[in-house]
Amino acid sequence: MTAIHIDDPCDARILAYTNIRERDLVGRQGRFIAEGKVVLDVLTATGRFEIESVLVLENRLAGLHSILARLPPEIPVYTASSAVLDQIAGFHMHRGILAIGHRGQIADAPSLLDSLPDKALIAVLVGISNHDNVGSIFRNAAAFGVDAILLDQTSCDPLYRKAIRVSVGAALKVPFASFSDTRVLADQLDAKGFSQFALSPRGKRDIRNMNCKGPLALYLGTEGQGLPEAILARIQTARIAMAPGFDSLNVAAASAIALHQFASNIK
Amino acid sequence: MTAIHIDDPCDARILAYTNIRERDLVGRQGRFIAEGKVVLDVLTATGRFEIESVLVLENRLAGLHSILARLPPEIPVYTASSAVLDQIAGFHMHRGILAIGHRGQIADAPSLLDSLPDKALIAVLVGISNHDNVGSIFRNAAAFGVDAILLDQTSCDPLYRKAIRVSVGAALKVPFASFSDTRVLADQLDAKGFSQFALSPRGKRDIRNMNCKGPLALYLGTEGQGLPEAILARIQTARIAMAPGFDSLNVAAASAIALHQFASNIK
Repeated sequence: MTAIHIDDPCDARILAYTNIRERDLVGRQGRFIAEGKVVLDVLTATGRFEIESVLVLENRLAGLHSILARLPPEIPVYTASSAVLDQIAGFHMHRGILAIGHRGQIADAPSLLDSLPDKALIAVLVGISNHDNVGSIFRNAAAFGVDAILLDQTSCDPLYRKAIRVSVGAALKVPFASFSDTRVLADQLDAKGFSQFALSPRGKRDIRNMNCKGPLALYLGTEGQGLPEAILARIQTARIAMAPGFDSLNVAAASAIALHQFASNIK
Repeated sequence: MTAIHIDDPCDARILAYTNIRERDLVGRQGRFIAEGKVVLDVLTATGRFEIESVLVLENRLAGLHSILARLPPEIPVYTASSAVLDQIAGFHMHRGILAIGHRGQIADAPSLLDSLPDKALIAVLVGISNHDNVGSIFRNAAAFGVDAILLDQTSCDPLYRKAIRVSVGAALKVPFASFSDTRVLADQLDAKGFSQFALSPRGKRDIRNMNCKGPLALYLGTEGQGLPEAILARIQTARIAMAPGFDSLNVAAASAIALHQFASNIK
């Protein structure tokens, strides 16, 4: 691998890296941006997404040798000085490790469900629009071997820059798909024999007392509003027991507790 | 309660609110700043900290009536327009609800331990220097009825602005104290009959298989380095079972899982 040094922040070859924050808002036309050593490690190790190029601070290159050795030889690796990199990105990049990936064809929910193992554990996110929460839920999902995450269309894109970063790369690892109608999804999961549980502070069963076999889907909603009433009425509900007067667990923390519990049951 | 309207961002009465971010860095000389409706609710409800004053956006005042009614009549409530509030704070305050509290005399670790109930559950934080993590751990601790949190001197101040905000007020609710020597603390906890567990990916016992009675202390360390070897050798170790190849749970998520488990055992 030979790195290509970039001196001009307007160089056409690194256009995809310019004005990172503005591009976060307008989208990247089929691409995503991955930041940091751990994320680049996951991106290159899984081979799930096609990598377009890598751009790193010149003084970080040596430390990335074993990660970059995984790249096909035709993938360009660009380097730049700190000053040039900051001009490209539009803000100070203290980490200085970036890569552009292609989203490719993201599976639709039915095909993803068809590909799952018999004892699958999946998470269904409804209205989780906060990037930190989506990233953290992916990280927890990877920690507990979740087989897939399904997101409704009001949830945040897992390949949004900040979500990938917070997930420490799990958003590039755990398979996901989006769906448009929660009731249709619940019917599909029923048809596939999934036990379905909606996590809610008002849930009927304490997750500590549940012992589920077979495939299981855990639904997670927003902290304020929670899951829609239609879902709470449609499937079984489960709760995490809390101290009186403070029933306010962050949804990512709740996902950690529930996925740990259900992974123990199933896996 | 009569609100006092502030027109001049340099008004001496609201000096404690000026340049919030700069003051975050240099400290507030025995004070802390609380932001947002939920945090103000906890601050006024617990009565644990003396409140110096409140400053809110003029159009938020009506919605805070029941919270502000708890304040002693001598505590001033200031209001300002959005433009003036932004000039005071030094950045755009979209929430527009602030209060200054007095830290008062924070208990030392031995006195806090003396005040605990027989079946206490406590968390011991070692090197948790990230404000988000400390705030999230306090939030989880409140959710599971943790009786106290002890922090070493390299951990972040729970009354730092961002830690209070992330804790959604739990940093103003869960009693805490700092300690300087982890070995001395471990001896004190031994003497008081605490079971002590260090949470570590390499921990000996799976927390799912533990059934502890009596008072319990859970030690949490940083994500990268983990707890110091001296502590791992000194007390029992416990782990959260994870999927192979991704043993990287965020420390706040790990605290949620472990505190949920141990609260079930003890409470």
